[in-house]
Amino acid sequence: MIYTAQVKVMPLKELLDPQGKAVMGGLGNLGLGSIKDVRIGKNITLQVEAESEAAAKAIAEDAAKKLLANQVMEMFEITIG
Amino acid sequence: MIYTAQVKVMPLKELLDPQGKAVMGGLGNLGLGSIKDVRIGKNITLQVEAESEAAAKAIAEDAAKKLLANQVMEMFEITIG
Repeated sequence: MIYTAQVKVMPLKELLDPQGKAVMGGLGNLGLGSIKDVRIGKNITLQVEAESEAAAKAIAEDAAKKLLANQVMEMFEITIG
Repeated sequence: MIYTAQVKVMPLKELLDPQGKAVMGGLGNLGLGSIKDVRIGKNITLQVEAESEAAAKAIAEDAAKKLLANQVMEMFEITIG
């Protein structure tokens, strides 16, 4: 069966996110000063062929650890369905 | 009050996602051939100062339309909280 896995990869809270800071500046210039912080990460949608939801999640986690996220600088979160 | 808005920006289904295709190739080389499709988008976390949840969502939507998403090629989805 094919499961859809969403992998959300975000920069760790402890680290600066220069891309987010730049976008926050841009939003301020557009009159959206009520946005106080911006952090930018990735959202990756995987179509995983697996026997069960748990197996699909394990495969997605493997993919995140091996390729999708750099765990030195990023954390990831997986949701199935 | 400060609300946390998650803006998920993904390439439109109708369009090719070359970055996703490249990552899918990489996953295949790593032995993760059970992943049949990969699409890569952005996940943006905003801290929005607003009176109510609805107002925060409106501000996040405004930001998405003006700067965060290119609606010719991408769709976005906002969740608060």
